[in-house]
Amino acid sequence: MCSQVLINPFRKGCVIFSKSLARRPLANSSWIRTLSHGTQSSNNHDFHDKSGYENSKRLMITGFGAITLAGLYYYFKKNIPTVWAHESKENEVNTVAREPGSFVEGLPVYSSDDVAKHCNESTGVWISYKSGVYDITPFIKIHPGGNKILLGAGGSVEPFWSLYAIHQQPGTLALMEKYRIGNLTKGEEHLAMANMHDPYANEPRRHPVLVVKTKKPFNAETPSSLLVESFITPTDIFYVRHHFPVPDVDLSSGNYSLEVIGLDEKHSLNLNLDQLKTAYAPHSVTAALQCSGNRRSEMNRVKPTKGLEWGQGAIGNAVWKGARLRDVLLAAGIKDSDENENWHVQFDGLDADPTNAPYAISIPLTKAMDPRGDVILAYEMNGEPLTRDHGFPLRVVVPGTTGARWVKWLTRIEVSKNESESHWQQCDYKSFNPSTDWDKVDFSTAPAIQEMPVTSVVCEPHDGEKVKLKKDKLNLRGFAWSGGGRGIVRVDVSIDLGKTWHVAELLDPVKLSKQWAWTRWQANLPVQTTGQETEIWVRAVDSSYNTQPEGMEHLWNMRGVLAVAYHKIKVLVEEN
Amino acid sequence: MCSQVLINPFRKGCVIFSKSLARRPLANSSWIRTLSHGTQSSNNHDFHDKSGYENSKRLMITGFGAITLAGLYYYFKKNIPTVWAHESKENEVNTVAREPGSFVEGLPVYSSDDVAKHCNESTGVWISYKSGVYDITPFIKIHPGGNKILLGAGGSVEPFWSLYAIHQQPGTLALMEKYRIGNLTKGEEHLAMANMHDPYANEPRRHPVLVVKTKKPFNAETPSSLLVESFITPTDIFYVRHHFPVPDVDLSSGNYSLEVIGLDEKHSLNLNLDQLKTAYAPHSVTAALQCSGNRRSEMNRVKPTKGLEWGQGAIGNAVWKGARLRDVLLAAGIKDSDENENWHVQFDGLDADPTNAPYAISIPLTKAMDPRGDVILAYEMNGEPLTRDHGFPLRVVVPGTTGARWVKWLTRIEVSKNESESHWQQCDYKSFNPSTDWDKVDFSTAPAIQEMPVTSVVCEPHDGEKVKLKKDKLNLRGFAWSGGGRGIVRVDVSIDLGKTWHVAELLDPVKLSKQWAWTRWQANLPVQTTGQETEIWVRAVDSSYNTQPEGMEHLWNMRGVLAVAYHKIKVLVEEN
Repeated sequence: MCSQVLINPFRKGCVIFSKSLARRPLANSSWIRTLSHGTQSSNNHDFHDKSGYENSKRLMITGFGAITLAGLYYYFKKNIPTVWAHESKENEVNTVAREPGSFVEGLPVYSSDDVAKHCNESTGVWISYKSGVYDITPFIKIHPGGNKILLGAGGSVEPFWSLYAIHQQPGTLALMEKYRIGNLTKGEEHLAMANMHDPYANEPRRHPVLVVKTKKPFNAETPSSLLVESFITPTDIFYVRHHFPVPDVDLSSGNYSLEVIGLDEKHSLNLNLDQLKTAYAPHSVTAALQCSGNRRSEMNRVKPTKGLEWGQGAIGNAVWKGARLRDVLLAAGIKDSDENENWHVQFDGLDADPTNAPYAISIPLTKAMDPRGDVILAYEMNGEPLTRDHGFPLRVVVPGTTGARWVKWLTRIEVSKNESESHWQQCDYKSFNPSTDWDKVDFSTAPAIQEMPVTSVVCEPHDGEKVKLKKDKLNLRGFAWSGGGRGIVRVDVSIDLGKTWHVAELLDPVKLSKQWAWTRWQANLPVQTTGQETEIWVRAVDSSYNTQPEGMEHLWNMRGVLAVAYHKIKVLVEEN
Repeated sequence: MCSQVLINPFRKGCVIFSKSLARRPLANSSWIRTLSHGTQSSNNHDFHDKSGYENSKRLMITGFGAITLAGLYYYFKKNIPTVWAHESKENEVNTVAREPGSFVEGLPVYSSDDVAKHCNESTGVWISYKSGVYDITPFIKIHPGGNKILLGAGGSVEPFWSLYAIHQQPGTLALMEKYRIGNLTKGEEHLAMANMHDPYANEPRRHPVLVVKTKKPFNAETPSSLLVESFITPTDIFYVRHHFPVPDVDLSSGNYSLEVIGLDEKHSLNLNLDQLKTAYAPHSVTAALQCSGNRRSEMNRVKPTKGLEWGQGAIGNAVWKGARLRDVLLAAGIKDSDENENWHVQFDGLDADPTNAPYAISIPLTKAMDPRGDVILAYEMNGEPLTRDHGFPLRVVVPGTTGARWVKWLTRIEVSKNESESHWQQCDYKSFNPSTDWDKVDFSTAPAIQEMPVTSVVCEPHDGEKVKLKKDKLNLRGFAWSGGGRGIVRVDVSIDLGKTWHVAELLDPVKLSKQWAWTRWQANLPVQTTGQETEIWVRAVDSSYNTQPEGMEHLWNMRGVLAVAYHKIKVLVEEN
């Protein structure tokens, strides 16, 4: 069960932490950025620096509930009617109208120590927020993530909400007040955030045109009308999907290196960026990058899912340049062999959660070693060094594969017989059928999303737009893409609910295989009547003749990934 | 345009014929089997044998209209309402009630020579059948295949209908009478078939359980309830899909060889079966073989398509053993290189049309050379030498790819910068959108089907069956498969029109890649009420998370290929 897998990194926090300390400069994690800037010791590799350890340990401890609270937030946000139906009239959202976390006269007073004693199911599960103390024990049983809620037990939620700022929303807080049982001892309400800095204080500046989904961590998409303006998406407006604060790597400090654990110790590599650039021939790949959750907002119309409310712009197409991963792995002793047919390549980023567990993921070794797989360790995007938001100084580019595998701020590669054990590999970025919900999901039954299915989108006009015809025709533009290097062979458009299909013109060159880039398309369709709403459907076919399902209904999954049904929008065709 | 491509092999008939003569023993073609058996000269490679040439030339000339008449047949069979709407009341099928080809008093009499003079559009297009003479000029303009109908002009249709026996059906003949203009000179009505033998006289015996679709050529499928009985489909009941009579290769004659045209003349190979077996390490692959047209009958319910009325049984799973094509091509000088990235491997079978143009097809060279592609030249199926119906002595096995590419009775391989120019590569086994019909199709706009999309089928119970519950549950069994080596990761079943989805149990082991075999599945679903009709839906998800479209409506294509929508059947659940 995934709750166990998820708990593990936290339960094993200290172990992971020690391992991380031993293998990577803490200085590279922006969680503990204060350690690395200005006070850099001459021994940059003294990772056992006492203050760093203590500081990180504190963060680790306070961080125990990060994902718990994320779950709580999503659960409150999405499942309110379901949850509250257990306790009140159906669909009646029973919130408490007061300033969340404010002192409430007449309630019992508890100390932080009292709260800390309630940290498991036998004692009851308490949390605190500002001056409020809450018994969330009743919530545990209906918590979709099962036991993992216990990770947050016995402490304040504030440190988590400073990291996962998206959770701190009025609706969530007001709902939490329903579990209110008391007040925190006066004076202790400030302790939780004492000496805490904002881990998001050093984020890069972003282009204002990006449509922001969450600020902390930063997640933003490209307006879809801009997507079709060019075959190559400009870096500045390329969608951004982060899980944590953005690492800030200072190459001049000499701290950055890429560790490659190959066949054995003897063959392991440790490379700085210059070494990587000079030792391995550069290779360029034009490839689309797409988030597994792109178009989730369309799926949410069927029924809410859990995840960022992406429109259609969590995709972009860029030229990536770097060293072939195959070449690096060959240097690390990995061979083309049937023996390692089912092995994996694990990647760690420098971005990490409060326990210093890095964002980590894996891909099949066969993809990495395939001479035609084009997996590269990219240091350039669109002819320039990577920006911080896109993984400076190094990210993995896994063409044809979902964005979750394109680890940014890459610092470690390990060839293994096993997949990454990370939360993101094991308990996220997977899909289930519509009847599998959080209360009964077993993540181990589904494979991690790697290659993505075929998709297509109408970018212009946008849903709900009032449009004028040009020469009596409705002008449509969009993109289509499929995973696994499968080229788009046809894009069909209908403006009469599928009674008639028009073949769109493909605007970009397409190969049948090793087609990593997207394809933009356009269609100019005759419209007989104006002044009325017209529904537009688009669907694409790839070189394996896979096509898209008609609707999101049967594609729905609790995580809202792979929303690849026909794209359907409605426009009002105006009188000319 | 495809009509030209199709015409070419016929227009160039003599050229192709000479080339064929120069490169293969005519003895191996069952069309001219009478030349090769019993009267084999000591010089087996004297392919310019005069009588063989003359005989084949006659066949070639009379064969000019084979495909024309095939088109005529299908057009009449499927498009009657459309065609006749031009000339009569809409949807009124205007046939003539008399014995087709019988002598009709009062009509003008024409000689064979008269008929022969009407062989193009300027002269008008005449054909004859028994005693009947027909002017089919009006039909040309509405003929979906365009000019290729001219190939049959000026002669009798009977030789073609002896080869394509399926065409000679009462409906077609009755419709043809509408174009009747005269009688053939008495005595000449027997000339067309004089000295013609039945090319299907030497077909192998087949298992009676096969569900025969056409006898000549032989096409038959496995009853779907037998499909799920075993992971490996027994050879005797494995589906058969032929385009022509079955070649009869006598290895002891020394006539059979495989020609491999590699990088250049120097590297070309000529191998008999023993040489192939001893020079190249044997490799076994368990792979499903599926016809592009499997499940066409379901698509036909939306609107008729053109093709064999396959149910769900034009698929099977077998163990194939043979030489790796990669090894053979390496020996023929082909290298792993970016230069040949877009090249192709063409295959010729020994089965051939009346012009001796072989069944020919091609696959991308990258698939053939991929060390993980598992393309083999198979001489064994399920542990035994291939049977004649499955390509004895050698067939190409292209795992993950549509059956049309698995050329049987393989006699020639050529690496080329171009795809095969054959009709089957260029103008068949392609798919279009539902608004593309025969009157406006441009086959060059679609790629040849290679890898197939994901599909799944309920084999038990069958559509319309009355079923009894077992322990209050409905027992379902079926198979699922996807192309490109993509394993099946989930099969979902619904008995409430998709409101609830049940995850089926997969009965066979599945890998995420290089999964060439199918996967059988079963589900035992609780049914609340009996005595009423229940609709069952099944759909599968492959390792790229591609899934099936919901219905056949928007998947419909004029050729009826890739019918991979949800499989939907209705059963009557009886009272226990």
